[in-house]
Amino acid sequence: MSEHLAELRTPCALVDWGVLEKNCARMSGRARSLGVVLRPHVKTHKCVEIARIQTRGHSSALTVSTMAEARAFAAAGFNDLTYAVPVPFHAIPEAADLLARGTRLSLLLDSEVALRELEAAGSARNLRLPVFLKVDCGYHRAGVDPGREESLELARALAASPHLEFRGILTHSGQAYRCASAEEALSVAEHERDVMAAFAGKLRSAGVPVPEVSVGSTPACCAARDWSGATEIRPGNYAFFDAFQAAIGSCALEDALAFTVLATVIGHYPERKALLLDAGALALSKDPGATHVDAPCGFGVLCDVPGRPIRGLRLGSLSQEHGQVVVSDPTLFARMPLGSKVRIIPNHSCLAAACFGSYVVLKDGRADGKWDTMGGR
Amino acid sequence: MSEHLAELRTPCALVDWGVLEKNCARMSGRARSLGVVLRPHVKTHKCVEIARIQTRGHSSALTVSTMAEARAFAAAGFNDLTYAVPVPFHAIPEAADLLARGTRLSLLLDSEVALRELEAAGSARNLRLPVFLKVDCGYHRAGVDPGREESLELARALAASPHLEFRGILTHSGQAYRCASAEEALSVAEHERDVMAAFAGKLRSAGVPVPEVSVGSTPACCAARDWSGATEIRPGNYAFFDAFQAAIGSCALEDALAFTVLATVIGHYPERKALLLDAGALALSKDPGATHVDAPCGFGVLCDVPGRPIRGLRLGSLSQEHGQVVVSDPTLFARMPLGSKVRIIPNHSCLAAACFGSYVVLKDGRADGKWDTMGGR
Repeated sequence: MSEHLAELRTPCALVDWGVLEKNCARMSGRARSLGVVLRPHVKTHKCVEIARIQTRGHSSALTVSTMAEARAFAAAGFNDLTYAVPVPFHAIPEAADLLARGTRLSLLLDSEVALRELEAAGSARNLRLPVFLKVDCGYHRAGVDPGREESLELARALAASPHLEFRGILTHSGQAYRCASAEEALSVAEHERDVMAAFAGKLRSAGVPVPEVSVGSTPACCAARDWSGATEIRPGNYAFFDAFQAAIGSCALEDALAFTVLATVIGHYPERKALLLDAGALALSKDPGATHVDAPCGFGVLCDVPGRPIRGLRLGSLSQEHGQVVVSDPTLFARMPLGSKVRIIPNHSCLAAACFGSYVVLKDGRADGKWDTMGGR
Repeated sequence: MSEHLAELRTPCALVDWGVLEKNCARMSGRARSLGVVLRPHVKTHKCVEIARIQTRGHSSALTVSTMAEARAFAAAGFNDLTYAVPVPFHAIPEAADLLARGTRLSLLLDSEVALRELEAAGSARNLRLPVFLKVDCGYHRAGVDPGREESLELARALAASPHLEFRGILTHSGQAYRCASAEEALSVAEHERDVMAAFAGKLRSAGVPVPEVSVGSTPACCAARDWSGATEIRPGNYAFFDAFQAAIGSCALEDALAFTVLATVIGHYPERKALLLDAGALALSKDPGATHVDAPCGFGVLCDVPGRPIRGLRLGSLSQEHGQVVVSDPTLFARMPLGSKVRIIPNHSCLAAACFGSYVVLKDGRADGKWDTMGGR
C-alpha cells in the first residue's frame, strides 16, 4: 500500500528507490569498466535489501564495520565479508565462529601484537583465519607505513602463518574527504593506487604472494579512471551520497536524494527569522559537513517534498529533537506552513541513516514499503 | 553474574550505578529544598530503571522528547508526562489515544495554528487535551515572546477552550549551555525565573489562571538558589552529566562518570603519536562539546577503567567506528596496550547514550546487569 509522504510520521528516513538504483548502477559500471571487484561497504545503510541492489551482477562480497553487520549479512546469505576496522581482539572468537559456519569474514591487522592474537585463535580453533594487512596510503588513521621495512616483515610473517590465510593488502583513502573537487579526489585515487601497487610489487619481489589489493573510498572511487594494480574497491557512501559528497564534487546534489530525512515544520518565528523542524541531532547527526569547502546549508540541505532545494534556508543548529532553520526570505513561511513536510539531505548520510531502524521506500514519489536496518554491535 | 570490564565487548555504554544515584539524589534534594516539583527529562537516558531512580520520593512526573518515549514510559506506569517539543500535528491522535487510556500526556504549543489543530482533535474525540503554552525565556529556539500582546491572547484562548486543559506556561533555558561558569548559569536561572514569574503574573492579572510554571535546564537547575514563582523544574542531563557540563561548571568531572563509553585500543601508531579506539561517531556522537569554554579533550575525556582521566590524551577525530587519539606522551602506549580498555566521558551524554540499545550497569567496578533503552520515534 503506497502512502503520500504528507501522511508519514516524522522524522523518518526515506530511501528513493529510483535514485538509489541509479547511484548503484553507476558505481557497478565503474567497477566493471575498470576491471576491479566491487565490494561495497554496507556501513552506510546497514540494510540487506540495499546490499542486494549493490551486488546485483557482482559477487556477493561486502565490507562491514561492526560484528552486528557481519552477523546479519552472513545470516542473509552474504558469505564473503571484510570487517574493515583493525580487529578488536574481543571480536576474534565470533569471527572464528562465523568462519567455522561458512562465512569467510576477513579481518584487518596492522601490528605484530594483533598477528600473534590472530595466530593463537586460528591455532586454538584449527582454522585459517582470513586476514588483510591494513596499509596507510596517506589517511593516517590506521595501517602500516608501506615504506618501512617492518611492514614487509609483518606481511611475510602473516603470509607464512599456518593459522592465517593472507588475503592481501588493504587501504582506505579517507583523505579524499579533505578534497575540494573531483580533480583533487582523482589525485588521491592515483596516489592510493600507486602506493598500493608499489607495495604489492615490493612484497611479491620479496617472495610474499599478494592475492588481493583492496582500495577505495567513495570520493576516490567516483573520481578514479584507472585502478591498475588494485583488485577490488570498497566504496560505501555512494549508494546514498549526501550534502558532503555533493560539496566536494563526488556527485550532483540530486544524486543525494537517494537518502533524505523527512521532517515536519513545528514552529514559525517570523519575528526572529526562524522556523523549527522536528528533526534534530538524533535524526541528522551533528556532522558539520564539508566545512573545508563551504557548507552554506548548515546541518543539511532543505528540500521540498518533491526534492527541490529550498534556497535561502539554512539549518542553523540542532538540538536532540529540534532543528532550527534560519529563514532569510520571509515569503518562505507561507510556503512552509506549520504541519507541512520538508526533506533534508543530511551532511553525512551514514551517520544520519544510523539514527533510524528502518527506511521508508519511496517509489514514484510515494511511500511504498519499508526496509529494516540492523543496529547494535 | 558480575563481570570484569575487561571482558566486555566494545564499544558499550556503562552506567555507574553509584554515581547515578548520587547525581539523582542531589537534584532530588535541590528540588525539594527549593519547593518545586521535579519532572526529570528522560530523553537523556530513555530508560525506565533510571527514571525510577530519578523519581524516587517524588511524583512519577516525567518529561519526554518523542512519542516512542511517551509510549514506553506510559506502558511502564508513568502516567503524567510532558512532551516537551512544540507538538508535531501527526502526533496528536496518538497523544489523544494515550489520554483516553489514562496517561496525561501534556503537549506544547506556541501558535494559534497549533491551538486550532489541538482544539479540533479534542473536540473530535470529546477529550480535553492537556496543553502548556511554550514560552521563550531567551533561548530563542521555540516559544512565544512573553512581552507581546499576542502571547497573552493566545494564553487566554487556550485557557478558554472547552477542548483543552490549560496546564500553564513552560520554558527551557537552553541558553544556559552557552554559559562558561556556574555563576553565569545562576544569572540565566534567575532571568528565566523572573521572566516566567512576570508572565504568569501578567496572565493572572488578566484573569487567565496559570496552574503550572515549568522551567529548567540542567545548568540552570544545578546553579539555581531560588525558584520562586516556578512550580516545577525539568532538568534531564544531570542523571549522567558529561564533559560539556563539567566544562561549564554544572558538575565535577567525576560526576560525569555516571555514563561512559567503554572502548578498546585497536591501533598503536607511535611514529605519528596516535592510537586508535573502536569507539567512533556511532558511539560518542559528533557533538563538539563546550567549544566556547575550552575542550582540550576533543570528542570526550579519556579515562582508565577505574575512571581516572588519562592526561595528555585527546580524542582528535571520529569516523563512524574509529576514534583517533593524539598521544603527546609516548609512555602512554605502554600503559594502554593493544586490546586494553578505556572509558570515555562523552561531550554530550544524551546523544552518546542514544547510540546504544542498553546500558551495562556498573556496581563496585564490575558489570552487574543490563538496562534496556527505548529507541525509535
